[in-house]
Amino acid sequence: MAAAPVWSVDPRTGKQREQVAVEATAHEVDTAVRAAHEARAALADRTVRAAFLRTAADRLQAAGDRLVEAADAETALGPVRLTGELARTCFQLRAFADIVDEGAFLGVVIDHPDDTATPPIPDLRRYKVPLGVVAVYSASNFPFAFSVAGGDTASALAAGCPVVVKAHPDHPALSELVAHVLRNAAAEHGVPAGVVGLVHGFEAGLELIRHPLVAAAGFTGSVRGGRALFDAAAARPVPIPFHGELGSLNPVLVTEAAAAERGEAIGTGLAGSMTLGVGQFCVKPGLVLVPSGAAGDGLVKSLTDAVSNSEAGVLLDHRMRDNFLAGVAERTGLPEVDSPVTPGAGGEHTVSAGFLTVAASALAEEGAHDVLLEECFGPVTVVVRYDDEAEATRVLSRLPGNLTATVHLSAEEAAGEGRGAAVLAELTPLAGRVLVNGWPTGVAVAPAQHHGGPYPATTSTSTSVGGTAIERWLRPVAYQGAPEALLPPELRDDNPLGLPRRFNGVMEV
Amino acid sequence: MAAAPVWSVDPRTGKQREQVAVEATAHEVDTAVRAAHEARAALADRTVRAAFLRTAADRLQAAGDRLVEAADAETALGPVRLTGELARTCFQLRAFADIVDEGAFLGVVIDHPDDTATPPIPDLRRYKVPLGVVAVYSASNFPFAFSVAGGDTASALAAGCPVVVKAHPDHPALSELVAHVLRNAAAEHGVPAGVVGLVHGFEAGLELIRHPLVAAAGFTGSVRGGRALFDAAAARPVPIPFHGELGSLNPVLVTEAAAAERGEAIGTGLAGSMTLGVGQFCVKPGLVLVPSGAAGDGLVKSLTDAVSNSEAGVLLDHRMRDNFLAGVAERTGLPEVDSPVTPGAGGEHTVSAGFLTVAASALAEEGAHDVLLEECFGPVTVVVRYDDEAEATRVLSRLPGNLTATVHLSAEEAAGEGRGAAVLAELTPLAGRVLVNGWPTGVAVAPAQHHGGPYPATTSTSTSVGGTAIERWLRPVAYQGAPEALLPPELRDDNPLGLPRRFNGVMEV
Repeated sequence: MAAAPVWSVDPRTGKQREQVAVEATAHEVDTAVRAAHEARAALADRTVRAAFLRTAADRLQAAGDRLVEAADAETALGPVRLTGELARTCFQLRAFADIVDEGAFLGVVIDHPDDTATPPIPDLRRYKVPLGVVAVYSASNFPFAFSVAGGDTASALAAGCPVVVKAHPDHPALSELVAHVLRNAAAEHGVPAGVVGLVHGFEAGLELIRHPLVAAAGFTGSVRGGRALFDAAAARPVPIPFHGELGSLNPVLVTEAAAAERGEAIGTGLAGSMTLGVGQFCVKPGLVLVPSGAAGDGLVKSLTDAVSNSEAGVLLDHRMRDNFLAGVAERTGLPEVDSPVTPGAGGEHTVSAGFLTVAASALAEEGAHDVLLEECFGPVTVVVRYDDEAEATRVLSRLPGNLTATVHLSAEEAAGEGRGAAVLAELTPLAGRVLVNGWPTGVAVAPAQHHGGPYPATTSTSTSVGGTAIERWLRPVAYQGAPEALLPPELRDDNPLGLPRRFNGVMEV
Repeated sequence: MAAAPVWSVDPRTGKQREQVAVEATAHEVDTAVRAAHEARAALADRTVRAAFLRTAADRLQAAGDRLVEAADAETALGPVRLTGELARTCFQLRAFADIVDEGAFLGVVIDHPDDTATPPIPDLRRYKVPLGVVAVYSASNFPFAFSVAGGDTASALAAGCPVVVKAHPDHPALSELVAHVLRNAAAEHGVPAGVVGLVHGFEAGLELIRHPLVAAAGFTGSVRGGRALFDAAAARPVPIPFHGELGSLNPVLVTEAAAAERGEAIGTGLAGSMTLGVGQFCVKPGLVLVPSGAAGDGLVKSLTDAVSNSEAGVLLDHRMRDNFLAGVAERTGLPEVDSPVTPGAGGEHTVSAGFLTVAASALAEEGAHDVLLEECFGPVTVVVRYDDEAEATRVLSRLPGNLTATVHLSAEEAAGEGRGAAVLAELTPLAGRVLVNGWPTGVAVAPAQHHGGPYPATTSTSTSVGGTAIERWLRPVAYQGAPEALLPPELRDDNPLGLPRRFNGVMEV
């Protein structure tokens, strides 16, 4: 049987551009994983890791024009967005290099013997070591930042773990280009090319998650695809951690006072956030609770105007376009659902943005309307009109887990008068990031970031963005009674590397 | 159908002592989980949590004589061991109270806005919040330290998570007593009794892991039981973290030089460690690599003498005794396996310790001897004689994951001459704790402890002993753009609680 070809496709025309590769066979996946496994030793030195990450950022930046052009041809995301995303990707690689240098992620803890404890404490020294080869499943919608050189790869390499990336079929040519840049950067530091493996094909992705030498996985994508891989990871003879970001509705609550104060501005802001990138963000606000009555009506009016004026856009691929149109049709076909601006097919390859409205009472109990509580990828959102706080709370309590939850408060509420703090407490169980008077699109790369949330937002309690993402690829090991002469320098009393640590119970920075 | 009775059984006679309870129905499990869920609010205040943990320790200590007597009647572990274990349990509860007070586990990170970053960083503040109700599956072999008031419960309560404990059938009466003490301690601080739920029965344990309001689970027990629960946790509509400690062989490598230097002492030490608690420790050394030749022979001779002189003991229950005898029979029946001291049935209710020997060559490839690479719970160990380093390495490479791995080095090797550091590096991938010139039995409660390891030692990368065990029951949440007036005090700039944190990238303690 001939190997299945992997084509680069232009989403603006639906036409095949070029054959990039063929889908990887089980044997090829095995070869890639073994090559990655062999590259572990070269990543053991943290100075090499940090230098490699910085060189990778430099080389990606230097190749920027070529990469952005290649990305645009396959994704239609446009040069402005893609240039920004590449800059974010380089920033992220450098941020992880800094994290490697600092070494706090090693979690060094040293306890000297203490015979007075119950039971007595021997000499114990703990830090974290890399898990091994990490399987990275690229996202469709971030060809740079959540793909071959994205956050999963950057954090895994920073942790000392080689990666084998399963390329997303929406940008296979770019994936090959980026992998090539990363391997050249690796070579500059004596790291074998196998440190960044790349495979194409759905079946190859399954082979990868089942490979005995794969020690963990990172995934960004759909609930269906992510759950299938999660299940495969859990069903292995030796189960492995699967850090998947699957789906999120990203609820927004607009208080009565906020709608009264600036409903128009909120409506315009919402239109901008839900149509950004043609609605193809995991943090797109997909359900917005707006009060009934005049203030809420004003918000909806402003949203109607802004969304009506938004331009039609090209989705990442035709399957996604089909799913979007089917999802919209299913939702608009429900009783009591209106669509002030109906989302739909634009031209042959584009879609136009829109939004739906429904009364909160329709969502109070389980029923046909529950499809409105599921993510619909693309430029559509659902505005839920509520009569009182209890009704809004009822809808929020029915939501699955989310990456984000947002509240728009009035100035007085934000200043601490009224129920601002209570709303924050109400939203906290729903999501991994809680925003006040902002929009969830735009996920900063920062130490305090958390991009994760209760299932199905993520399959673990970890984050895929921000410095703590490195924690996903490490495990602790404690040495008991090991003489200083045999210990790695990270665990020696005199702290030759100047690492932050906990020493006999006291934190030292 | 009448509810199945739960009996307390005397392992010294095999006779039923008293009916303690009945197995919980699905409805009763639901009631316990809902009561625990309701108790979350009372644990939200960290000062309440710390005080509750300390009172629990005080009350357990005060009831010590009664509890030790009850534990001994059901487990036959003896008052000396049980008194020590209770002291350890109280120490652990107090250690977690200190951890709650310190607050480092909250992982506070604060980033002020930075418009120069790519993309720009908004005001972001992250800390960790409790996951919710934790299901705790008690161990047979630690009726105090890994049961109702054990490490899983202590760390979960410290994290702010109520627990529902599935009692181990080997000590149901003690479980009821301890739960009662904990609930009284809770009441002293206004915490509802539901904060520590207790259910009996195998089916109840399955109901518990499937309950929608259970947010995570901790388990200590067998590979078979633990894997079944792990699978159930992963198969839920909303999967939950399952932190299970399932099984471990705990390999020990004795170098040629160490055997030559002090083979006799090592043999005696090994006998003590493998027979401690009638071999019923998860960290019992179950496979010992000893060099061929005279030095190794001396070690085996000393082991033979010491084990021959060890007394017969009572195992925790009759099923365990049956499994031990069957496991020994399966192993001694293998070709090329000798048993210098044959483990076996002692009296009607006891077993006697022993050990087996086999040449490393028998374990070089997959085959019938692989059963020797599986844990056999009880007072037996397998001595593997190796001809050279390559042969020892080959056996080590075939082992599943372990809680511990130990090396015995000569004084010169320990001082850094020879391959001491290389052996440490070789053992690190095998286990969560690596010991030099010690024995793995005895797991200190200390900040640097790590009691976990590659599967099947544990089903996650976390620990069930030591301060970092608290991390299992938390998830991060980040607040974006939230005004100070609405933020919890933990996340305010002026740090009113004096918490260690990372503030604009800089660690503060």
